[in-house]
Amino acid sequence: MQVGIVGGTGHEGRGLALRLASAGIATLVGSRDLEKAREVVGALQARRPDVRLSPAANAEAVERSAVVFLAVPFAHVDAIVLELGGRFQAGALLVDITVPLSFAGGRVELLEVAEGSAAEHVRARVRSDVRVAASFKTIPAAALERIEAPLDCDEFVCGDSEETRGATLDLLARIPGLRPLDAGDLRAARTLERMTALAIGLNKRYRSRGARYRMVGL
Amino acid sequence: MQVGIVGGTGHEGRGLALRLASAGIATLVGSRDLEKAREVVGALQARRPDVRLSPAANAEAVERSAVVFLAVPFAHVDAIVLELGGRFQAGALLVDITVPLSFAGGRVELLEVAEGSAAEHVRARVRSDVRVAASFKTIPAAALERIEAPLDCDEFVCGDSEETRGATLDLLARIPGLRPLDAGDLRAARTLERMTALAIGLNKRYRSRGARYRMVGL
Repeated sequence: MQVGIVGGTGHEGRGLALRLASAGIATLVGSRDLEKAREVVGALQARRPDVRLSPAANAEAVERSAVVFLAVPFAHVDAIVLELGGRFQAGALLVDITVPLSFAGGRVELLEVAEGSAAEHVRARVRSDVRVAASFKTIPAAALERIEAPLDCDEFVCGDSEETRGATLDLLARIPGLRPLDAGDLRAARTLERMTALAIGLNKRYRSRGARYRMVGL
Repeated sequence: MQVGIVGGTGHEGRGLALRLASAGIATLVGSRDLEKAREVVGALQARRPDVRLSPAANAEAVERSAVVFLAVPFAHVDAIVLELGGRFQAGALLVDITVPLSFAGGRVELLEVAEGSAAEHVRARVRSDVRVAASFKTIPAAALERIEAPLDCDEFVCGDSEETRGATLDLLARIPGLRPLDAGDLRAARTLERMTALAIGLNKRYRSRGARYRMVGL
């Protein structure tokens, strides 16, 4: 199965690419700029010569992939979906990993999104035959990118149907050290996106970069 | 230091009473009905003869305590604060543990609170010299009450000032197996209260009763 990352050259996208590819998943690292994608893939492959990563323009990453991760900054989501929305494979799975954060004035704030969350914002803007899930909202890029260290945490998945969540959970279960958890329908993204802001605040207060969640008692 | 629990005979209140008292903290178990408080304390002491728990009417629990936990159902908060607000000690610390949940139709939903969260709702209603923190939002009553098992999790504390949070963190640090974390100002309760709903959903989906949070990487 081919997986593509739109915005795969960003901080979170690069970490995700490494984790997916290390799990043996064929991964396209997408960028607006194919040259940039090539550079980033070169650097990532230098770190992990054993994994399969390929560079692609974002449009190609969407066209060729059954599963597409959306890893652009939230501010670019509307433009990207408008530009690439027609290129999704029929029945593609789109996993939104964006978080609508503002860092104005040195303070992390969640931006108000009319639909309630970035994930629901995305759902409202893509074709109805594209399935939409949300995940990788709460794992910091710094932790994803330290590929030598197991993630050793949980990751919450929500989605627009049980089938969508099941497909996303199955994919994530292939990543070593990660336990994917079914967080329910897409509205759960309202909670997950806030949890990102909470983790960033904890990182700041406790001088860490890798704060992430593990459920106890499950 | 005397600690009191308003609504200490409820499910969450009983578990909290056991955890506080087991940490050697003198704890008043408050109830609207002193007779009910006596019964509950009797039952708790039978389970843990070594701990110091005392029954009290809610009003007495407030008057006698430097730290008051608010453990009534959210629907009763306004009436309780109206009734007991004048009885707080000057400079008392009030720790709100309520979560505004609805269980209508077998579905757990967070109720809309005009102030953004239950904790902010409480802050808006008590005297300004009473310090307000929020905690024990995310640990399920079932886990608190299984006093034989260490909590083995984190608990998030937010509050109306750094000093308020510090006092609450110091108190919680005395509970074995619990790592209290500073989650920032009172608005963080908006996240914590949503996290309760998420944990309840996970409990349901994964057939558990004790889902709670631990931060990795801190």
